[in-house]
Amino acid sequence: MSFARRWAELDPVGRAASGGYRRFAWTREDATLREWFASEVGALGLDLTLDRAGNQWAWWGDPDAAPGIVTGSHLDSVPDGGAFDGPLGVVSALTAVEALQASGFRPSKPIGVVNFGDEEGARFGVACAGSRLITGAMTPARAAALRDADGTSIHEAMSRAGLDPEHLGRDEETLRRIGAFVELHVEQGKALATDEYDAAVGVGTAIWPHGRWRFDFAGQANHAGTTRLVDRDDPMLSYASTVTAARSIAASHEAVATFGKLLVEPNGVNAIPSLVRAWLDSRAPSEDSVRGTLDDLVRHAEQLGASVTEESWTGNTAFDVPLAQRLSEILGGAPLLGTGAGHDAGILATAGVTTGMLFVRNPTGISHSPAEFAPEADCLAGVEALTTVLRELAA
Amino acid sequence: MSFARRWAELDPVGRAASGGYRRFAWTREDATLREWFASEVGALGLDLTLDRAGNQWAWWGDPDAAPGIVTGSHLDSVPDGGAFDGPLGVVSALTAVEALQASGFRPSKPIGVVNFGDEEGARFGVACAGSRLITGAMTPARAAALRDADGTSIHEAMSRAGLDPEHLGRDEETLRRIGAFVELHVEQGKALATDEYDAAVGVGTAIWPHGRWRFDFAGQANHAGTTRLVDRDDPMLSYASTVTAARSIAASHEAVATFGKLLVEPNGVNAIPSLVRAWLDSRAPSEDSVRGTLDDLVRHAEQLGASVTEESWTGNTAFDVPLAQRLSEILGGAPLLGTGAGHDAGILATAGVTTGMLFVRNPTGISHSPAEFAPEADCLAGVEALTTVLRELAA
Repeated sequence: MSFARRWAELDPVGRAASGGYRRFAWTREDATLREWFASEVGALGLDLTLDRAGNQWAWWGDPDAAPGIVTGSHLDSVPDGGAFDGPLGVVSALTAVEALQASGFRPSKPIGVVNFGDEEGARFGVACAGSRLITGAMTPARAAALRDADGTSIHEAMSRAGLDPEHLGRDEETLRRIGAFVELHVEQGKALATDEYDAAVGVGTAIWPHGRWRFDFAGQANHAGTTRLVDRDDPMLSYASTVTAARSIAASHEAVATFGKLLVEPNGVNAIPSLVRAWLDSRAPSEDSVRGTLDDLVRHAEQLGASVTEESWTGNTAFDVPLAQRLSEILGGAPLLGTGAGHDAGILATAGVTTGMLFVRNPTGISHSPAEFAPEADCLAGVEALTTVLRELAA
Repeated sequence: MSFARRWAELDPVGRAASGGYRRFAWTREDATLREWFASEVGALGLDLTLDRAGNQWAWWGDPDAAPGIVTGSHLDSVPDGGAFDGPLGVVSALTAVEALQASGFRPSKPIGVVNFGDEEGARFGVACAGSRLITGAMTPARAAALRDADGTSIHEAMSRAGLDPEHLGRDEETLRRIGAFVELHVEQGKALATDEYDAAVGVGTAIWPHGRWRFDFAGQANHAGTTRLVDRDDPMLSYASTVTAARSIAASHEAVATFGKLLVEPNGVNAIPSLVRAWLDSRAPSEDSVRGTLDDLVRHAEQLGASVTEESWTGNTAFDVPLAQRLSEILGGAPLLGTGAGHDAGILATAGVTTGMLFVRNPTGISHSPAEFAPEADCLAGVEALTTVLRELAA
């Protein structure tokens, strides 16, 4: 198998000084990754097509003759992200197809491998942009309004990357081709590494409800040396109070809440800020928990003068129950588990596609970090599991 | 007088969408401002020279024959700063010289006008870089180690701006030429606008002790959705606690303390930060107050795992007492007042130069903000005061 070769080829692409990756949608690094994907599927004899959002689909067999069994994931990353989140699913998919071909397997249904664009939303702020666009979960109008940190639009970014942004929108032709979608992904969390599960591979049952909200704390820019404390309107104080409140409120609702991204203006050492803009990410096993967390926190922040805008919301996403049961059985009773992380698989499931996920054990649970890691033996067990699944589902 | 013409010419240079200014040292905007200064002093028949740090000096008379009376200020700004902080002193200096020439005045001592570089330290983090370099308050080795946000060194920035960074260091020849330095500046604070003072122009007595410290809060980057609260090492919480503590600690010491600049890594919506780096600015009328504030706050932050580095420290700076008294008398009993803001005048005073300051009334007290403002009548009163001072001191 060429898992190790493919893994080594991806290793240097977009690697930052931190040791983590900066692979953002429709950048030079992304172009390198897309070219690599096209070259790999070409070598496997698959037919490459682009959908209306520029996601890459590679087909073994004709998906217009009968809906296919699709696997794959994404190659982009969060800022200073790890090597596994996304690429493990793509590399495992390619290696599984290679293994099926080498074994002489002849699929009775088409098999597809997909590379979704902009899964992390690191550049334009909306996660799973590629799958949201083709399912209609994000409208072309909303996409057109998005800007990256430099003020570049998605349309400009796609055009510069040689893609055509003029036909963004729900892509019926592509969706019709997907009989079932199974995404393999490194676990984000360490459930599979606990004594309770103790398994190299697990099967996903659901994605927790989750959302992103923008908190704007406005103040009065002023000189840090000459403005008396009593004369200040310093939004950093309101922000700090809200960060502290977020932890205790989330704990009380059995949710998680994170302020991980921040923009300060003017961001000068000797200037009281005029604006602190902070993004909240909150998730929980139940929608009530997330909504309860948000309601309490918005009340706290609004009393301090903040304005809050919902940037995204995804309710509880249950994967197809019969498919999850079947995947577990095929894999000899692999454990079933939910996750707090969003995925393209969740977007497809919400759009009505029969969808499942496989998770590969992550001994530290760390993800979205240069320290993200899965042992090679577990990765190879994931490839083997995916190979088995494709052989069963496409038989 | 051409105060209004000069003011209007500077108005568009480096103006940002915020309405404030982004005029950073050795940038294109700075080059435009330096060319404008050279053109203005040329039109007045003054001789332009550069010192070892690239600061611009314009002389009426020969400063090597006898030490001169120098005025001036700076043309750079903080991010989204106001129009007055710096430029008011330079424009007033040029207009005062023009008024003296028009009146037929013949100075018995040389008169100088200076435009100091990088007073705000917005680009490289050290305020008053130009005056610190020529007085030796900043060594060439320390300057060589500074980097801006893009990793550019001062040496590279100066070279690209057409300046020679190879001779940075204390500049005895330039210092010898300064018999006395009087810097005019917009007041930062609103003391002159209070009933207690109620004056268009005041005379500075001292600059409060002040410093800048870098607080590094390190944590463990991880996925915001899948990492349980109890498993987190989230540095944003420690930072928030320290911001809240800074306000109450500063109040207890009758100091001011500000966290206005922040860097978050990786700064992703769905990633727990690996690092929150924050800069503290603290000042007070007494050194004990600043040191007491800092000691308490460092203790608080270090208990949360932070490491703290002093980036700059300037003790109390008293201006020359006989000169301040004389300036007040010349101006018919102008009020005397201290300030929390640092200035090149403070650096020169510390280096042993006979130094004074004039402040122009600021009705809102707002500074380092697009809303910074002084009425034109008060600005013209400042020009008249500076003209009177130069006529007396250079007679």
